[in-house]
Amino acid sequence: MNTAILLKSRPKGKPTLDNFGFIEVDTPEISDGQVLLKTRYVSVDPYLRGRMRDEKSYIEPFQLDKPVQSGVIAEVVETRNSEFKKGDHVNGMLEWKKIQSHTGKGLQKVDPDKAPLSAYLGVLGLTGITAYVGLLKIGEPKEGETVLVSGASGAVGSVVGQIAKIKGCNVVGIAGSDVKVKLLKDTFSFDEGINYKTTDTMHKAIQEACPEGVDVYFDNVGGEILDAAVANMNRFGRIVNCGAISLYNETEQPTGPRLETSLVKKSLKMQGFIVRDFQSDFNEIVPQLATWLREGKLTYEETIVNGFENIPQAFIDLFDGKNKGKMVVKV
Amino acid sequence: MNTAILLKSRPKGKPTLDNFGFIEVDTPEISDGQVLLKTRYVSVDPYLRGRMRDEKSYIEPFQLDKPVQSGVIAEVVETRNSEFKKGDHVNGMLEWKKIQSHTGKGLQKVDPDKAPLSAYLGVLGLTGITAYVGLLKIGEPKEGETVLVSGASGAVGSVVGQIAKIKGCNVVGIAGSDVKVKLLKDTFSFDEGINYKTTDTMHKAIQEACPEGVDVYFDNVGGEILDAAVANMNRFGRIVNCGAISLYNETEQPTGPRLETSLVKKSLKMQGFIVRDFQSDFNEIVPQLATWLREGKLTYEETIVNGFENIPQAFIDLFDGKNKGKMVVKV
Repeated sequence: MNTAILLKSRPKGKPTLDNFGFIEVDTPEISDGQVLLKTRYVSVDPYLRGRMRDEKSYIEPFQLDKPVQSGVIAEVVETRNSEFKKGDHVNGMLEWKKIQSHTGKGLQKVDPDKAPLSAYLGVLGLTGITAYVGLLKIGEPKEGETVLVSGASGAVGSVVGQIAKIKGCNVVGIAGSDVKVKLLKDTFSFDEGINYKTTDTMHKAIQEACPEGVDVYFDNVGGEILDAAVANMNRFGRIVNCGAISLYNETEQPTGPRLETSLVKKSLKMQGFIVRDFQSDFNEIVPQLATWLREGKLTYEETIVNGFENIPQAFIDLFDGKNKGKMVVKV
Repeated sequence: MNTAILLKSRPKGKPTLDNFGFIEVDTPEISDGQVLLKTRYVSVDPYLRGRMRDEKSYIEPFQLDKPVQSGVIAEVVETRNSEFKKGDHVNGMLEWKKIQSHTGKGLQKVDPDKAPLSAYLGVLGLTGITAYVGLLKIGEPKEGETVLVSGASGAVGSVVGQIAKIKGCNVVGIAGSDVKVKLLKDTFSFDEGINYKTTDTMHKAIQEACPEGVDVYFDNVGGEILDAAVANMNRFGRIVNCGAISLYNETEQPTGPRLETSLVKKSLKMQGFIVRDFQSDFNEIVPQLATWLREGKLTYEETIVNGFENIPQAFIDLFDGKNKGKMVVKV
C-alpha cells in the first residue's frame, strides 16, 4: 500500500493538520530509465511554508491537491536506470510519498557507511551547506570578529556557530529556551547564549553578550531580533538573511523600524541568499563538512520523529521551536 | 570683518534658521606651517543633518555653539606653508567662516582653469565620487540591466544616472516635479522618469517604467520609495543605500514594511556606504569623472545661491527639494 501527503488548503497563519491530506495511491510501475524509490527519511524545513503560499518566488509554489515536496533520503528498491542499483541510497527533492518513481535526474547517492542517513538531510545536506555558504560566502567573518546567530540551536544555526568557532570568531547564539542555550554552549561550542523568551530588551542583551559589537549577524528569524542585532552592529557589519521564521506565518504585512538609516550610517550590508544558487560549490563544501565532522570539530543534533503519518505535525512543530538541531521524520 | 555660522540648537524635525547663529569673529593670525583661507564656495548636503544630532555615528556630531563644517572651496590669501602659495584654490572639510586659518593637512588643490570651482564640490568632488563608488563598487551594474535612481535630479542622483548610461544600462529616475523629470530625460540622459509627487502607487509606477524589473536601485531617499523599489527588484538585485533624506527630519523612529523576507526570497543585497572609506580610490575616480565631463558624456546642474548669510537657508531648502543638481553657496 502506498500513501501520499497532499496540500489540501493553503495555511492562513500557522499551518495546521487540516492543511494536509493523506491519500492512498497505487505503487507505480517504472519504465526504462526510471528507479523506484522507497522513502526512508523526510526533511521538514521552515522554508516550505513559503512554498505553501500562492505567490511568485524563487521556487514554484506547491499546487493544491498535489503532494508536498522536500528533501528526502530514499532507497532504490527497483531500477531500470544503469546509474543506480538496488539498495543504493539517494538524496533528492522528492514527494511526500512512501514509494515513488523517478528518472534519477538530480538525485545524489549517499553512503550510509560514511554517515547516518539522516545526516545527509542535515549537517551534510542542504542545511549544513546553507550554514557554510551563508556564513563564509556572504558573512565573510574574520578571525577575532564577533558572530551573532539567531535560531542558533536549529539545524542551520548550530552549524553556523560551529563553523564560526572553527574560523576563530567569538560566537554568540540566540535561542528560545534555557535548555537550548545550554546546548549552544555545552555541545555546539558557542561562547555565549541568549534566551530571547526570558529577555526583556534584546538590544541590551546582545550588547552585554557582545561587548565589542557584532560584526556578522546570521539571521534565521527576522523581526524584532533582527532590529536588535542591527542596533548592535559594528561599522562594515554584514547581516546574512538566511530566513525569517518569525514572519512566515504572518497574515498581514509585518512592519518594523526602518533600517536604511542604520545601513548608511554604519556601512552595513544585508544580503539574502538561496543555497541552490551555490550548487557549483557543493562538491567542495560537502567534503569539508564531512572532514570537520570526522575530526570532531563539528557535531550535530537531530530531532527524529517516527512515522510517515507524522510528517505534517513535525513540520508544524518547527514553528513552535520543538526541534533541537535538524528535524527529520524517519519513515 | 570675519563671520562664522554656529550650530545654536539641534533641529527637532526639519531644520530652521533658528538652529543657526551668526557671530563676528577676529580674522586669525597664521603661524608657521599654516595658511589663511578665504571661503569661495560652500557645499550644503543632506548628510549634514545627521551631524546635527547628538548621537554616535561614523563622524563626530557638530558641537553646539561651534561652527558648522562642510565641503568648502577656499582661496589661499596668506601662506606660511611651503606647499601652498597665495592664490591657490583648495578643497577641504572646512568651517562655515568667511576667513579661517588651517594647517593645510587634508586640503586638495583644485585648478580653476580645468573646471569651474563649484564643480569641485559637485561632479568632481565628493558628490561625483559618491555616485561613482556607490553605483560601480556597490551596485555593480552590468550592461543591459535596469538601474533605478531616487533623488535622481539631485547632486548624486544625476551623476549616478549618467554613469549608468555610460555603462550601457536602462536608467529610470525618480524626482519630485515634472520639471525635474524633464531634466532627467533631456539633460541627464535617463530613459524614463517618475514624478513621485503626482504618482498614486509608486509600486505600479516603477513596474511600468521598469517592465523587466529593477537590477540596481540607488537609494538617496529611503522610506516608501525604497519599499516600492524592493517590491520591483529582480532576483540578485542590489540596493545601494546612499542616503535616506525622506527620514532625516523624522523625530520618531520611522517604521515601514519589513524587508527581510524579500531579501531572502529574491537573494537581494542592501548595502550602505560612506564615500570617505574609498579614499584610496579617489585618485583613479576623479580623473575618470573629469574625462567623461570633457568628452561630454557627463553633464551637471548646479543651484548656486549667493551670499555667506544664505548658507543656512540653502541647507534647509534641500529638504524641500528646491535644488536641481548640486546646491552650493557662492560667498
